[in-house]
Amino acid sequence: MSLLVVGSVALDTVETPFGKAEECLGGSATYFSTAASFYTPVKLVAVVGEDFPQHHLDFLRGRQVDLAGLQVASGNTFRWSGYYEYDLSTAHTRDTQLNVFASFHPVLPEGYGSCPFVFLANIDPDLQMEVLRQVNRPKLVALDTMNFWIENKRESLTRAISMVDLVVMNESEAREFGGSPSLIKAARRILSLGPRYLVIKKGEDGAVMITTNGYSVAPAYPLEDVRDPTGAGDTFAGGLMGYLALCGEPSMSNLRMGMVHGSVLASFAVEDFSLERLKTLTHDQLRGRVEEVKSFNCFVEE
Amino acid sequence: MSLLVVGSVALDTVETPFGKAEECLGGSATYFSTAASFYTPVKLVAVVGEDFPQHHLDFLRGRQVDLAGLQVASGNTFRWSGYYEYDLSTAHTRDTQLNVFASFHPVLPEGYGSCPFVFLANIDPDLQMEVLRQVNRPKLVALDTMNFWIENKRESLTRAISMVDLVVMNESEAREFGGSPSLIKAARRILSLGPRYLVIKKGEDGAVMITTNGYSVAPAYPLEDVRDPTGAGDTFAGGLMGYLALCGEPSMSNLRMGMVHGSVLASFAVEDFSLERLKTLTHDQLRGRVEEVKSFNCFVEE
Repeated sequence: MSLLVVGSVALDTVETPFGKAEECLGGSATYFSTAASFYTPVKLVAVVGEDFPQHHLDFLRGRQVDLAGLQVASGNTFRWSGYYEYDLSTAHTRDTQLNVFASFHPVLPEGYGSCPFVFLANIDPDLQMEVLRQVNRPKLVALDTMNFWIENKRESLTRAISMVDLVVMNESEAREFGGSPSLIKAARRILSLGPRYLVIKKGEDGAVMITTNGYSVAPAYPLEDVRDPTGAGDTFAGGLMGYLALCGEPSMSNLRMGMVHGSVLASFAVEDFSLERLKTLTHDQLRGRVEEVKSFNCFVEE
Repeated sequence: MSLLVVGSVALDTVETPFGKAEECLGGSATYFSTAASFYTPVKLVAVVGEDFPQHHLDFLRGRQVDLAGLQVASGNTFRWSGYYEYDLSTAHTRDTQLNVFASFHPVLPEGYGSCPFVFLANIDPDLQMEVLRQVNRPKLVALDTMNFWIENKRESLTRAISMVDLVVMNESEAREFGGSPSLIKAARRILSLGPRYLVIKKGEDGAVMITTNGYSVAPAYPLEDVRDPTGAGDTFAGGLMGYLALCGEPSMSNLRMGMVHGSVLASFAVEDFSLERLKTLTHDQLRGRVEEVKSFNCFVEE
């Protein structure tokens, strides 16, 4: 089934202790679409400037990403520049140039409104709600966010969250938004706003899904070498939502397996800068790691 | 099968944002023995002073803990005083009084040397090696340690680690001792010293076991309220080793299930100060949480 994502397409300049990439392909919708494209065709709604390199568009089209909703505005593409310290846990921003993103309003092309699976990547919650006004009873709507919106647009974000089925946040964001150092208490408060599922990303500790009466754990795939964690969360979400769209139903077991697929895809994404590793990833490699993660379970006899 | 632990018995004064306990029962060997006693009789080797309250001894005896190896030395019992901040993640020491522990040398009573399962709780690695010289080819020897020994007795600790089968460390200790921010790289270096199994405790992210060719994940049981994390790691180890001693063989599947039991026991321990929650814990409650943790697995259909 078709999957719609609304988010950012960017040109990133990223430095980690293991290298540097300048003006490389980035953005939440880009990572999401590429990850999801392993499972299903994706419709992408975002904006780029006139300076956006043609070969990036060719790459996305080659991954079956429908770009009918990608606006090309006069001006420059959104740019982010940042670096990571040796522990790779936190992105430090050097520079953000919103450029054409500053005046972006998502417009869904004809037919997009009936997409059964919708992902609102990390953008202004007011824009996320603009998207919701253009869709027609999807099977599942998921939303990601970040500390910037929690701190600066809490009211809008709260409203947006009350309108979706699934919220994806990282651990510190969930604690901050939920207002408790206890992750479980914070989660209960977020779920009380309306969503049925809360997925919390924990980086190298994997991800957990919390519902009003359930708890699921997707372990992270252990890596010796991480080169660039940029986009790991969006890649995770792309794997999760792509898998759900492939299955067609957001059942609990599909959501759980989707978390495993998202986690495995993210483990590949961080092995290299930008989308380099996802570009060479094969379905066999993906399936191999999913099987490995299955073997991590302590209740399975070896 | 019988299980031997050598470690500390202490009187703790602990303050957390949720309360305070003064001069309460503590110490690595105490938490370990109490946890392990849910599975198997335990032989405890440690030292207390003449001031050690009789009712604590009665409690341990009531849990089938053999105290023949508990020395009573003239002087005061080892005391630790500390506090936790709101996030409960790090213990801050206010005061440590070694007292009788300063001149402690473990002496194994007649018959203890043939124990098939041995746990060297967090004490000076030179003392851990003194124990190893008194045991006769156990089935499994495990060792715990802490940053103090990594920083001040690295050479002794390295030797002790090379002599055991299983090492238990928390995440930051493994990175520090293994000398890499990559947990997997650090783990490989630790395993290269000789142990077959490395178990890394991750607090509210559970525990992982790393071997030269395997990886296992035991999720933590999610808690809304943690009152006092003191002793969580020793309780985890007690559950793991107690379960192994009950099963009789340190097979991979027993080690894995042992991690789950350790993790569940630790989740009870932190619900109250000192050993209060473990004192009232029933086998039914323990089994119930183990079954719940089983249901967290994303590969299981609900």
